Amino acid sequence: MSIFASNSMGSAAFPSYRTAGGRVFNFNAGPSILPEEVIKQIQGDIWNFDGTGFGILEHSHRAKPFDKLLHDTFALVREVGQVPAEFEILFMTGGSSSQNYIVPLNLLRPGDTADYIDTDFWSTRSIEDAKQAGHSVHVAWTGKPHEFRRLPAADEVKFSAKPAYVHITSNNTIYGTQQKTEPAVPAGVPVVCDACSDIFSRPIDWAKYGLIYASAQKNLGTTGATIVFIRKELAERCGPTVPRMLQYRTMIKEESRPNTPPHFAMYTVKLMAQWIKANGGLEGMRKHNEAKAKHIYSALDDCAGFYKPHAAKADRSLMNICFRLPTEALEETFLAEAAKSGLDGMRGHRATGGIRASIYNAFPEVGCQALGEFMRAFAKKFG
Amino acid sequence: MSIFASNSMGSAAFPSYRTAGGRVFNFNAGPSILPEEVIKQIQGDIWNFDGTGFGILEHSHRAKPFDKLLHDTFALVREVGQVPAEFEILFMTGGSSSQNYIVPLNLLRPGDTADYIDTDFWSTRSIEDAKQAGHSVHVAWTGKPHEFRRLPAADEVKFSAKPAYVHITSNNTIYGTQQKTEPAVPAGVPVVCDACSDIFSRPIDWAKYGLIYASAQKNLGTTGATIVFIRKELAERCGPTVPRMLQYRTMIKEESRPNTPPHFAMYTVKLMAQWIKANGGLEGMRKHNEAKAKHIYSALDDCAGFYKPHAAKADRSLMNICFRLPTEALEETFLAEAAKSGLDGMRGHRATGGIRASIYNAFPEVGCQALGEFMRAFAKKFG
Repeated sequence: MSIFASNSMGSAAFPSYRTAGGRVFNFNAGPSILPEEVIKQIQGDIWNFDGTGFGILEHSHRAKPFDKLLHDTFALVREVGQVPAEFEILFMTGGSSSQNYIVPLNLLRPGDTADYIDTDFWSTRSIEDAKQAGHSVHVAWTGKPHEFRRLPAADEVKFSAKPAYVHITSNNTIYGTQQKTEPAVPAGVPVVCDACSDIFSRPIDWAKYGLIYASAQKNLGTTGATIVFIRKELAERCGPTVPRMLQYRTMIKEESRPNTPPHFAMYTVKLMAQWIKANGGLEGMRKHNEAKAKHIYSALDDCAGFYKPHAAKADRSLMNICFRLPTEALEETFLAEAAKSGLDGMRGHRATGGIRASIYNAFPEVGCQALGEFMRAFAKKFG
Repeated sequence: MSIFASNSMGSAAFPSYRTAGGRVFNFNAGPSILPEEVIKQIQGDIWNFDGTGFGILEHSHRAKPFDKLLHDTFALVREVGQVPAEFEILFMTGGSSSQNYIVPLNLLRPGDTADYIDTDFWSTRSIEDAKQAGHSVHVAWTGKPHEFRRLPAADEVKFSAKPAYVHITSNNTIYGTQQKTEPAVPAGVPVVCDACSDIFSRPIDWAKYGLIYASAQKNLGTTGATIVFIRKELAERCGPTVPRMLQYRTMIKEESRPNTPPHFAMYTVKLMAQWIKANGGLEGMRKHNEAKAKHIYSALDDCAGFYKPHAAKADRSLMNICFRLPTEALEETFLAEAAKSGLDGMRGHRATGGIRASIYNAFPEVGCQALGEFMRAFAKKFG
């Protein structure tokens, strides 16, 4: 019998699952699920924020209430992330894809080459975007011949003579791989990390990084804000004709508001940082995310003849679990039946097809348990 | 006697004003007030959007519910704005200030010069930003010697020999001026308009424009999205090494979602477009905004010895009403007493000081009436 409250099994083939608040479990890859207590907080704050008599959406980014919110957000993100003092915390716009051109614009001087480790659709995009904008790029390793099923061993990565930085992607949303340790790079070379899909989902070894960026809408809030952590000295590499609004040092100097910033998205980052703090910080997130993923991977492994996971076992992501079924028709049935059962948003990326369950920080363990149960029942019925 | 429900006048010097929903009147210059019915709609939609079982903040930008929302938004914005077919509608990020570098990057070819009409702090910024990024700029007129109190007469504007475009700022938030008609530019030269603070506040004579941009958070929603209207052929001027994410043609081709867009801000634009439609469209907004501004300007004029409006009468803005009081001490008293009375957010921009009442589309007429009443009472008491 299901451990979950279920509707009558009458005409339905599978149980009906719902969140604590009675909503559908949302496995979307981003924008993605938020904690229900955070949503309730937002509902109140958009009507009357902090007793000011009007809502957060309507608050000036220069007046005192937002000023306080901004400073509280910086402090809280620093505390929760254990961000060392030598890093600045910035809020920018345009998503992680915009960092594809902002990073080389700021960090490459004339004649410089940047090295990229290519582990996914999105790292390929980062490489293409840097090249398209006229920068010199060396691909130190690519997982393309391996269908991006695995990450490189240390001795497979071939750096150029003197890279200005090494770019990596810590979690690969489309193929479902995630680095467990940082790659060994040449001494003194800063690592730039696209952590768009696993930021603050586990502790960060800051000593290994020069710059980390991530959009908020997966693990840390909603769309509109891109969070950037940068060592102060890296922000000084930028040439004088890089547009002011694209210079990291402008953002440092102006506290991320040279103009009207994406203030509502920044506010959601504060709420998520609070939620992470209340749930054990980054170490708490790691345990929580490991426990969650286990429910789904164990169902995959136990029904290994039926489900085909994409990623190599050693490189499995705790954030995005990607797999195929024996046929595309069965995949469509799986998606339709899952949605009927209250497990929504699992269609794989258009580049790969198949199934993808995204279970970022805010995704509750009970929903992962539900999916595991559903997967076993589905395999039993159709396998 | 006040026409507004007021608290006991006991210890308070002025009546207490509140919105229909019992909130404070928010005169902030942006982010700024939203219609209370829109806020209530958002409160529901962030919990469960359109019967999907989860909220709009959590919806994938690729799945069907947002797909429909996006197409509905484009259609509604086109309908409400009466946007001709030769214009594309785009959602970008980074605010109007980012258009300061995006416009010249896309529209200027090597050797081109752009002409700018300098009417405000923000147009000066547009000029400085274009120059800083290495572009050739000609200032066709500047209001600086006139303390930006007035806009130019037609014969004062001196264009360069062959400008690639003419850049104007339709409403000047800091100094409180607004153009009543478009400037006469040389034949065939596209006009680029920063309409950040008066977009959709009145009908637009599209034939006069090549490109119009505006952030959403004043008249058309909240922070995070910048709306751009561009003639298709202008998007083709762009050179091949302009970063993909900054090319207008990328946004056209990808329906404004080459990556995760600021989907919540775009959703608020849809709600505001619906609200504008329900309130008489752009012609309705014009009447509404004229009626609103009249309450405040008539108080200014009737107490002309006490209040000193910044803008020349002929160029007065319907969006931002800027004035000084006899002393800075009195301005502080004005701001404090107004806030106590429920009239908040009127501190002038840090560049000018003084008082600024911003009364964008969503600001209710009753609040303008309240401010007019307050201003008369304040002048009587302290004048």
